[in-house]
Amino acid sequence: MKLVTFELNGKECVGILSDDEKQVCATKYESMLELIKSGERPEAGEAMDIGEVKILAPIPQPEQDIIAVGVNYKDHAEESAGHLDDCSEDKKTTYFGKHVNRAVAPGDPIEAHEDIESDLDYEAEFGIVIGKEARYVKAEDAFDYVYGYTIVNDMSARSHQFSRSQYFYGKGLDNFTPMGPCIVTEDEFERPPKLAIKSFVNGELRQNSNTELLIDGVAALIEDLSKAITLRPGTVIATGTPAGVGLGFNPPKYMKPGDVVRCEIEGIGVLENPVVASAELFKK
Amino acid sequence: MKLVTFELNGKECVGILSDDEKQVCATKYESMLELIKSGERPEAGEAMDIGEVKILAPIPQPEQDIIAVGVNYKDHAEESAGHLDDCSEDKKTTYFGKHVNRAVAPGDPIEAHEDIESDLDYEAEFGIVIGKEARYVKAEDAFDYVYGYTIVNDMSARSHQFSRSQYFYGKGLDNFTPMGPCIVTEDEFERPPKLAIKSFVNGELRQNSNTELLIDGVAALIEDLSKAITLRPGTVIATGTPAGVGLGFNPPKYMKPGDVVRCEIEGIGVLENPVVASAELFKK
Repeated sequence: MKLVTFELNGKECVGILSDDEKQVCATKYESMLELIKSGERPEAGEAMDIGEVKILAPIPQPEQDIIAVGVNYKDHAEESAGHLDDCSEDKKTTYFGKHVNRAVAPGDPIEAHEDIESDLDYEAEFGIVIGKEARYVKAEDAFDYVYGYTIVNDMSARSHQFSRSQYFYGKGLDNFTPMGPCIVTEDEFERPPKLAIKSFVNGELRQNSNTELLIDGVAALIEDLSKAITLRPGTVIATGTPAGVGLGFNPPKYMKPGDVVRCEIEGIGVLENPVVASAELFKK
Repeated sequence: MKLVTFELNGKECVGILSDDEKQVCATKYESMLELIKSGERPEAGEAMDIGEVKILAPIPQPEQDIIAVGVNYKDHAEESAGHLDDCSEDKKTTYFGKHVNRAVAPGDPIEAHEDIESDLDYEAEFGIVIGKEARYVKAEDAFDYVYGYTIVNDMSARSHQFSRSQYFYGKGLDNFTPMGPCIVTEDEFERPPKLAIKSFVNGELRQNSNTELLIDGVAALIEDLSKAITLRPGTVIATGTPAGVGLGFNPPKYMKPGDVVRCEIEGIGVLENPVVASAELFKK
């Protein structure tokens, strides 16, 4: 089941996408978090043409910061060597918090923050959405705690990421977390999911990998995190990005206002966003 | 005005502490976040003996991760050299997210997590509570955006903090964020506040400094963060800890179950918590 959050007449609603993705059927839930916490299976109500509604990020305002995973694809470790200190093989899995005031909807602008940053980079990531409170969960049981999956673009301000030693500032800027277009429930996928993951900038293929190449997969991440931290329903875990980000090129291919980044994951969909100057956004 | 969150008959309430701190007067607000967002000045209702109620952390469940500041006292930079990579003077201010499922109330147990960590450390910190949505705030205006101040004990699992390159895991464990005992409104203090900050373990003085020695003070932090991130009302910024944490001793003085840590800030109060083994906590 593909679930979306959409806006209709200024109100947030949860809907179910039709198989052909041309229609969305309303449900009784006012937010995705309410649905996830209910533990219920949503029933489809009135169907609308998808063009009639505004699709939002599936969880427009997460209740806690997104838990993001550091280097988690071997090829990204190779391209990042020299930039990051979490690339060596003997490091334990690295996590950082990605602060999200409001997740950016499909099609909506990523804010360029041109007054403080010029090294703007994209990171297509496979996002896990937790469905049930999880503590001390063993890897073999982990998938029972997954509600579904989405796409997260972990936009990064590289100069702040590297000049401040911790990633919080360089990852948590306003309007830096495109998410969507939907959450696909866990029952639609293999365990573990083996899905093509790609990104494009202005139509040029940049990242092209598969979630089966994750160093720590879904089950390992949930086991490792839940040894220490209770994962609450609605928690989003962004599982890291494969090779092909802007900093991996020589010279780096950073983004600028006017560019468009498109992230795709097989079976989930497409998340495309333009980069817009802060000055433009605040003019509105 | 000193504000507390308390529990009475299983319900969360906001109260005003009397001058002698022996009584708490109920208000109409059901949560501190509701009060902060209202922008109102609370009126005192029924007075109760403080012994009749259970004092909770002032913001028991923050809406986003706490924004914590890396090394921010010069003496702590010196004791941490060799452990941390954010101590050099040319580094910009470092922030990390401290994940909080539920902040620990005064007197309540800090969880030892003895199955995964033995290098348990305390960090007494001066906490800023944001009162109004803040973006592009200049240092000279910053205090207008502060609701008040509290004490945060930024408990740290040092082995995970250092083995994972980013601090998220080592700082965000369950029951690792004592906060309180109250929020004191900003109007009660000088700008900037110059307050003694101390910590004790089992009665032994460990940290003894003053908030006037912060490298980046309240105004600088709000200016720096709000260039990039909208600070929402209720956001907590833990401003870093002075020298005297366990890792600064040779050999280090880490905590173990049975120890009691007490953090004090002049004009705010005392935040004291025992460390209790996870196994004990889960027995209950």
